[in-house]
Amino acid sequence: MPEKTPDIPLPLGFLFSTAEAAIKKPAKGSKRKDMALIYSEADAVCSAAFTTNKVKGAPVKLGIERIKSGKARAVVINSGNSNVSTGKRGMGDAREMAALAARHLGIPEHLVHVSSTGVIGVPLPMQRIRPRIAEMARSIGSASALDAAGAIMTTDTFPKVAARRLKIGGRTGTILGICKGAGMIAPKMATMLCFIMTDIAVKRSALDRAFKEAVGCSFNRITIDGDMSTSDTAIVMANGMLGNKEITASSSHYSRFKKALSGLAYELSKMIARDGEGATKLIEVEVRGARTEADALRGAFTIANSLLVKTAVYGNDANWGRIMAALGRAGIDMSEEKTDIYFGKVRIVSRGVSTGKYDKAGEALRQKEVKITADLNMGRHKASVLTCDITEGYIRVNAEYRT
Amino acid sequence: MPEKTPDIPLPLGFLFSTAEAAIKKPAKGSKRKDMALIYSEADAVCSAAFTTNKVKGAPVKLGIERIKSGKARAVVINSGNSNVSTGKRGMGDAREMAALAARHLGIPEHLVHVSSTGVIGVPLPMQRIRPRIAEMARSIGSASALDAAGAIMTTDTFPKVAARRLKIGGRTGTILGICKGAGMIAPKMATMLCFIMTDIAVKRSALDRAFKEAVGCSFNRITIDGDMSTSDTAIVMANGMLGNKEITASSSHYSRFKKALSGLAYELSKMIARDGEGATKLIEVEVRGARTEADALRGAFTIANSLLVKTAVYGNDANWGRIMAALGRAGIDMSEEKTDIYFGKVRIVSRGVSTGKYDKAGEALRQKEVKITADLNMGRHKASVLTCDITEGYIRVNAEYRT
Repeated sequence: MPEKTPDIPLPLGFLFSTAEAAIKKPAKGSKRKDMALIYSEADAVCSAAFTTNKVKGAPVKLGIERIKSGKARAVVINSGNSNVSTGKRGMGDAREMAALAARHLGIPEHLVHVSSTGVIGVPLPMQRIRPRIAEMARSIGSASALDAAGAIMTTDTFPKVAARRLKIGGRTGTILGICKGAGMIAPKMATMLCFIMTDIAVKRSALDRAFKEAVGCSFNRITIDGDMSTSDTAIVMANGMLGNKEITASSSHYSRFKKALSGLAYELSKMIARDGEGATKLIEVEVRGARTEADALRGAFTIANSLLVKTAVYGNDANWGRIMAALGRAGIDMSEEKTDIYFGKVRIVSRGVSTGKYDKAGEALRQKEVKITADLNMGRHKASVLTCDITEGYIRVNAEYRT
Repeated sequence: MPEKTPDIPLPLGFLFSTAEAAIKKPAKGSKRKDMALIYSEADAVCSAAFTTNKVKGAPVKLGIERIKSGKARAVVINSGNSNVSTGKRGMGDAREMAALAARHLGIPEHLVHVSSTGVIGVPLPMQRIRPRIAEMARSIGSASALDAAGAIMTTDTFPKVAARRLKIGGRTGTILGICKGAGMIAPKMATMLCFIMTDIAVKRSALDRAFKEAVGCSFNRITIDGDMSTSDTAIVMANGMLGNKEITASSSHYSRFKKALSGLAYELSKMIARDGEGATKLIEVEVRGARTEADALRGAFTIANSLLVKTAVYGNDANWGRIMAALGRAGIDMSEEKTDIYFGKVRIVSRGVSTGKYDKAGEALRQKEVKITADLNMGRHKASVLTCDITEGYIRVNAEYRT
C-alpha cells in the first residue's frame, strides 16, 4: 500500500502536523509519533458518523455535540489511549485537548474535534499531551498526510491513505482520506478513525447525504472480529477552497461527487479489512439471490464473522460446510437445497450438494484476495461484506495488547 | 476428568459397544474407535433436543421424525463425518444405519436414533460403516460408557461422562450421561452430542418437561466460538428398569429428578466448555442487576462470544474495557456509569470507572477457572453463560481440521 502514497494529491488549505507524546509507553518512549493535528485554513462544512455502541468514548461524546454546527476547522488525534470509560475526568481531558488546539491555532474552540484510539479505561497522560498540542499547532504544515496516517495507527501494520481527483466546472478538486483500523472492527463502524478532507465546496445537506451513503457501503460493511468499538469516528471536512460553485444535492456534479466519496471510503475500508490484526488474506463475502437486501446483508455478515469460516480460509481449506452452517443460523430465509456456494469462480456447492471441485477451490483459496459467494436462489437481492482471515497472529496481538 | 470415571455407576439395562470404521482417515486407519452403539434392553421413554440451525444433518432430520413416538431402544453414533449437506443419499444413509442396527439387534427400526458428527458435505463411507454396525450389535455390552464417550469424540481432548444417583422410594436409580463437544459450540445447542440414560421410570410428559429445562440451563448456555452446529443432538432415554412407580410432573419425586437431570446436564456442559478447541481456561460470565432476564442473557452471551474478551483472558490481561464495550453493543438496557465489573471477586470497575486493582484482578485471571461478573445495577435479573478462552490452538485446530 504505502508505495502508492508519494502520488497522493492534497486538497487545498489542509495542513498536518504530528508529535510524539509517548502516550502508551511513557518509560520506553513510544518510538513513533502518536499524535496528529489536521487543520483547515478556512471554515469547513463537516459531516460525521460515530459508533452506535452505547458505551462511547469522551471524544465521541464531544464530537456528537460539536457536529451539530456542521462546521469544523481542526481535528486533534491521539493513538495509544481511547479516553473511553474514564468518567468526568475523561470528558474534561477531551475538552481540554480541543481547547488547547483552538487556542494555539487561533480558532474557535467549538470548531475543533478530538479523536482518541487505544486502550480503554485509563486516563490520558495529559501532562505529556498538553505540550505536544502546542508544538503541533506551531508546526502545522510540517507533516504529510502519510505522516498523519502513521501517527494515528494502533495495531495497524501500514498507514492508510487514499485520494480521488474530480473535475468540477473546469477546476480539479481533491478528496483525501486517512484512516486507521486493525481490530475491534465490526458494524456499525469499527475501531476505526477516518478523516476525509476535500477542497470542493459542498452544501452541508448534500455532504451529509453523500457521506451517509459512503459510510453505509464501506465502513459499515467491514468486520474483523465482530467486536464493535466505543471510539469509531469518521469525519469529512469540505473547506470549499477550490472555489467551485457549491455542490447541492440537486446540482449536476452531486452524483459524481458522491461516487468519488463512496469510492474513496470503500478503498479505505478495504485497506482496513486487509490489515485486520494478524490477517493474511482479504475476504469478500457476497450473498446474492436473497429475498431481501436485509437477508443478504445478514447472511454475508454471519459468514464473515464465523470463526470457523475465517480459520478455514486461513488454512486454504474449501470447507464449505461451515458457510452452509453459518447461513443456516443467520436467521434468514434460505433453503439448503437451493443454495450454491463459490470460492472465487469455482462452484463448490450446487443446490446444496458438493460438486467435488476441491482442487480448483483450493487454488482460489490460496490467493491473497478470496471471494466467497453464496447464491440463495430465492430472490434478486445481494450484499457484500469485507473481512479477513483469522490467524495465530490475531490471538497473539490481542492476548498481549496491554501487557 | 477421566480419573473420575471408574466410579461411574451404570443404569440398569443399558449396554454399549464401539467399533473402528476409519470414517475420517480410511488410508491410515482412524487409530481409534469412531462408532458407538447404545442399547436399552427395554423400551425407553425418550425426549430430545436438536439444533435450531435451518441446515440440519440427515440424522437430525430423522431424529425429529422419530422422536414423535416418544420411545426409543437404541442410538447408533459415528464421529468423523456429520452426514450434513449430503442430499438424498445422506438421508438414505442415515435410515440405513438405523435399519441395520435394528435388524441386528432384533428391534423395530423406528426405535433407533442415529447421530453423526464431523465434517460437513462428504457422503458417509457406508461400505466401512455397514459391517461395523453388525459387529457392534453382535458384541453389545462389550464396551463401557467411557469407551462409548471416547468413540464419539471429534476434536475433544477427553471423553465426557457423568452420572447421578437418586433414591426413589427405597430403590436407587442412576442417571448416566455421555457427551462430546469441542468446537462450533453456541446457543442454541452446539456441535455437541449428548446421550443421557436412566433406569428410573418417568412419564413422557414429565421427562419432556424436565429435559427441556435441563437443556435450557446447560447446553443452551455454553458457547465456544459463536458458531452453531447443524448436528446438535441431546437425547434422554428412561427405560424404567428400576421398577419404581412412574414419575409424573405432579409426583413428589419429580423435582428431585429434575434437579438431578439438570445438575448432570450442567456438569456435562461444563466439561464441553472446558474442553473448547485449544482452550486453556473455563470462563463463567454472569450478568446481574439487569432489567430483564433476556437482557442478562444477551449481555452474558455477547461478553462470552467476544474474541477480544476471550483473548484478554487467555493473556491474563484485566482489560475490562473490552467487557464494557461488549455490553455497550449487546443491544440491552445498560448505562456505563452504573456498571460494575468483577474478575473473580475483585471489583475492577465501580460505576463505570476503574478501581485500579489490576494486580489482584490479574491473579484472578491466572486461575484455570475464571469468573467474570458484570453488575448493571439496573434491576434484579441475572444469567450465566459458560465459555472458554481462545488461543493459537483454536486457530490451528480449525485451520487444519480437514487438511
